[in-house]
Amino acid sequence: MRLSRYFLPVLKETPSEAQIVSHRYMLRAGMIKQSSAGIYSWLPLGFKVLRKIEDIIHEEQKRAGHIPMLMPTIQSADLWRESGRYDDYGEEMLRIRDRHDRDMLFTPTAEELITDIFRSHVGSYKDLPLTLYQIQWKFRDEIRPRFGVMRGREFYMKDGYNFDLTKEDALHAYNRHLVSYLRTYERMGLQAIPMRADSGPIGGDDTHEFLVLAETGESEVFYDSQITELKFGDRQIDYDSVEQCQAVLEEFTSRYARTDETHDEAIFAEVPEERRRTARGIEVGQIFYFGTKYSEPMGATVVDKDGNRVPVHMGSHGIGVSRLLGAIIEASHDDKGIIWPEGVTPFHCGIVNLKQGDAEADAACDAIYASLTALGLEPLYDDTNERAGGKFATMDLIGLPWRITVGPRGLKNGVVELTSRRTGESEELPPEAAVERIAQIYGVVAKG
Amino acid sequence: MRLSRYFLPVLKETPSEAQIVSHRYMLRAGMIKQSSAGIYSWLPLGFKVLRKIEDIIHEEQKRAGHIPMLMPTIQSADLWRESGRYDDYGEEMLRIRDRHDRDMLFTPTAEELITDIFRSHVGSYKDLPLTLYQIQWKFRDEIRPRFGVMRGREFYMKDGYNFDLTKEDALHAYNRHLVSYLRTYERMGLQAIPMRADSGPIGGDDTHEFLVLAETGESEVFYDSQITELKFGDRQIDYDSVEQCQAVLEEFTSRYARTDETHDEAIFAEVPEERRRTARGIEVGQIFYFGTKYSEPMGATVVDKDGNRVPVHMGSHGIGVSRLLGAIIEASHDDKGIIWPEGVTPFHCGIVNLKQGDAEADAACDAIYASLTALGLEPLYDDTNERAGGKFATMDLIGLPWRITVGPRGLKNGVVELTSRRTGESEELPPEAAVERIAQIYGVVAKG
Repeated sequence: MRLSRYFLPVLKETPSEAQIVSHRYMLRAGMIKQSSAGIYSWLPLGFKVLRKIEDIIHEEQKRAGHIPMLMPTIQSADLWRESGRYDDYGEEMLRIRDRHDRDMLFTPTAEELITDIFRSHVGSYKDLPLTLYQIQWKFRDEIRPRFGVMRGREFYMKDGYNFDLTKEDALHAYNRHLVSYLRTYERMGLQAIPMRADSGPIGGDDTHEFLVLAETGESEVFYDSQITELKFGDRQIDYDSVEQCQAVLEEFTSRYARTDETHDEAIFAEVPEERRRTARGIEVGQIFYFGTKYSEPMGATVVDKDGNRVPVHMGSHGIGVSRLLGAIIEASHDDKGIIWPEGVTPFHCGIVNLKQGDAEADAACDAIYASLTALGLEPLYDDTNERAGGKFATMDLIGLPWRITVGPRGLKNGVVELTSRRTGESEELPPEAAVERIAQIYGVVAKG
Repeated sequence: MRLSRYFLPVLKETPSEAQIVSHRYMLRAGMIKQSSAGIYSWLPLGFKVLRKIEDIIHEEQKRAGHIPMLMPTIQSADLWRESGRYDDYGEEMLRIRDRHDRDMLFTPTAEELITDIFRSHVGSYKDLPLTLYQIQWKFRDEIRPRFGVMRGREFYMKDGYNFDLTKEDALHAYNRHLVSYLRTYERMGLQAIPMRADSGPIGGDDTHEFLVLAETGESEVFYDSQITELKFGDRQIDYDSVEQCQAVLEEFTSRYARTDETHDEAIFAEVPEERRRTARGIEVGQIFYFGTKYSEPMGATVVDKDGNRVPVHMGSHGIGVSRLLGAIIEASHDDKGIIWPEGVTPFHCGIVNLKQGDAEADAACDAIYASLTALGLEPLYDDTNERAGGKFATMDLIGLPWRITVGPRGLKNGVVELTSRRTGESEELPPEAAVERIAQIYGVVAKG
């Protein structure tokens, strides 16, 4: 993308309403614009990151054998009356009356609707196990929306639902989700620690929240420092293997890690003192096993091997997709701006032309742009007439992990400059070598 | 995907509420499920086609230089009061009051919000031309929703908005949209004819609707039969070229083609009688030029070359994404079910195992499945214990364009059967040759 043809409305001033760094940088980098309290438009740069995060989630969910679908945002209140949650949910539910005076709502979660789909179409244990999921807009009418996309009203969420014959099978689904979530967050450059949590209005006893450690987190967390040394890495997992998934769960949840909701001083005291940590965390996901809480009242049953009709065991599993942008920025920034992990960066590489209009510099930038594009990578080429300082400031603010700087002086010596956003280190090398380095970083292979 | 691990709830019975063929087949093929009047869940097969259509639209919009972003579904009424449309819109607008008693709405279209974004961030003619678009859920509270996704209440729509300095520039944007829409529909296997139409509540004088001819269409259309012979094909277009885009517009709109809203018997009578056609059509898109209708009242201005502040010229451009599934099925089906065009098929090829459990047949199916997958193609392998007739009926119903049938008898002679869903013609050939044929059809290259 050439910046002259893009829409990247960066702000020089820091918006006064933004209290935390991710909110400030998302506004300043032209990623979002508030349209009303807690409701945002996703400007092109923000939308691009949102899609990258969505794509990673889809890939990892499908890898785990989960099946994508989509439920509507507006639902009838009737189903929610069946489960009993219509009255329980309180003012955070956005209630709507349509032109025929029917009670509707903008769905904050979809346990009822998915259970209705299940009971309408599935009747036999032979159709289990089954895990369906969606990535869809939700609404929660927060009384005081704040922190930008971190606690907005309209938010994008991945919500998945497993249906299993027995509690054991459903716990395997729970473990499978835990594994897939670990992979998902790591691909986004995040360390998200599973912590024992409280189930809230979803229900059930087994639940873990995934928390990213950050000073601005809303939750107070308590953990054994050993847990931060764990890495999922690129190990191969057979998602059908009960043992393998169980082993990962045990590895990642056997050390003490709890939010303030479930924190227990007595147990925490057993952790060696030098490993006891208190910090703040941002919740980026949660998994639940809640058994027959919805299937029983709503009649979601299957016929088992012996011909008996039994309610299915369920769980639900969520990832806060739009919130993740905020969490990633909270975890990865400096005083100049965002520092995107390679897995979610909106553009793979920035190209800065120090002297737009100089024939040689323009030609070199065009050639680098074409080479990167031919590799299937997306560079952002600042081809505007802005002075060099301004171009650097914008690139630092929007946080592309790599920048190639091209100027007449370097070209005389046959080199351009390759700069890492994270370390700030620069290296001079020939243009083709810079392209090759970027290709290596992103694991793409140059053709020919 | 193995059918035994998928969620494909096909119905044997034809649902009584469905009046048109696309609605019937979408329900029977397990693509959608109604959740309330005019509101649907997209079951896995339906969601897969929806995503394919969405991807084609994104590709073609970006090719035309348009920039993707995303606006929220819930908007404040305030902006709509500024344009004057809040009161004009009538009962089809879903009006909502939030917990603080603020008037909100579920957006049916986004001229106001995009204009607000524009005026907040753009101030100079140097930032033009600019075309932003989104693919997002919309709501229209139809008094009598019907025909499944063809006239639903919650629907998925691509809406794009161009901002230009002059009327001429905006008309070039209009033409560019027309060209990109022609390409888009053809990639979906559709012939969508641009017809002069009425602008309705969007406003403006220049507008074309794109109509797919189908008996069940809601609009009556009148056209010169020569227009159905036009093909966009794979010609290369420079979207920056005013002349090239204008030439395509002229080619595709110079012959008579109008909806009943703008039909003129006197002009129609000038078409040679043997070429005059009356038919029914399904509207799948519409483009508008409306000048300064929104920019003037909302103050969306830029400073021009001479330092004067002038309102920008705008247009908006929509494609009915969810509706397209219905339109494609109306245009492409037979009495056994759907016939997907290759461009949008949910799976590239079906594999039917005539004797599940037979070691040789199972191994041959597994090998074909693995080969197609390695090519980057997605087969749907019916590995269930259903009898052959049932497997064929399901494949015909869900409409995959190609099917490979594998059975012990054929394998003894070293062959499988490759069947075209459209023609019904079958051919016996070795498994590897069948895979190669599928690869050719989809334009993928076998490795090694």
